[in-house]
Amino acid sequence: MFEKNMKIALLLDFYGDVLDDRTREIMNAYYEDDLSLSEIAESAGISRQGVRHVIKHGEEQLEFLEARLGLAEKGERVRTAAETILSLAKELSDSSDPSVAEIAGSLTDAANIILEKGV
Amino acid sequence: MFEKNMKIALLLDFYGDVLDDRTREIMNAYYEDDLSLSEIAESAGISRQGVRHVIKHGEEQLEFLEARLGLAEKGERVRTAAETILSLAKELSDSSDPSVAEIAGSLTDAANIILEKGV
Repeated sequence: MFEKNMKIALLLDFYGDVLDDRTREIMNAYYEDDLSLSEIAESAGISRQGVRHVIKHGEEQLEFLEARLGLAEKGERVRTAAETILSLAKELSDSSDPSVAEIAGSLTDAANIILEKGV
Repeated sequence: MFEKNMKIALLLDFYGDVLDDRTREIMNAYYEDDLSLSEIAESAGISRQGVRHVIKHGEEQLEFLEARLGLAEKGERVRTAAETILSLAKELSDSSDPSVAEIAGSLTDAANIILEKGV
C-alpha cells in the first residue's frame, strides 16, 4: 500500500530545494500536480516501481531534514505569532493617541518582514 | 592555505544537526572548540590531511544547505524584526491607557515566541 502523506506536501514546500532535480520534479508531480504513479512513470520514462522508489527515498530525505531542523514546525509557530502581532497592531491603529497609531504602523511593518510580505 | 571561515561557525549553528556525527564532531572541534588540525587529527586517530578533508566536505554541505534554504540569512532578518517588536512593545507598556498596556504584554509574548524565549 502506497499512501499519499499530506504532511510530505508541506515538507516539500520547506525543503524541496535541497532535493536533487529529478527527485524534486517527481515529488512535485506527485504531491503538487497530483499525477498518478503511472502518469509520472510514463513522462519520466521509468517504471512505476522506479517512481515509487524515488518518492519513498525523497520522503525519507524530507523527514530526516524535518527531524533534524524542524523548520516546518518552527515556521508554523513563528507565522502564528506574527499574525497575532498583526492583529494587535490593527487594534492599536485605531487609537486616538497619534504616537500609539504610529507604533502600530511600525509593528505592522516588522510583522510583515517576519511573514515576508511586502512592506 | 586553509583558512577558518567564521561564516561557517554560524552555519554550523543552523545546520550542524544535518551533518553525520563524525563530521559534526570534527567541525565543532575546529570551529567551536578552536582546536588545531593537528590536535583534532590526534584525537580522531586520522591524518591532518584527513581532518582537512572532512572539514572541507562539511563546509560544502553547510554552504549547499544555506544556498538552498537560506535559514541563516532569514533567521537574522526575523530576529531583528522580533527585537524591533519587543522594543516597540516596551514603549507601549508605559501607556496610561490600560488597554494599550495590555496589548503591549501580548506583543511581548508573541515576539518572545518568535525569539523562542520563555514567555
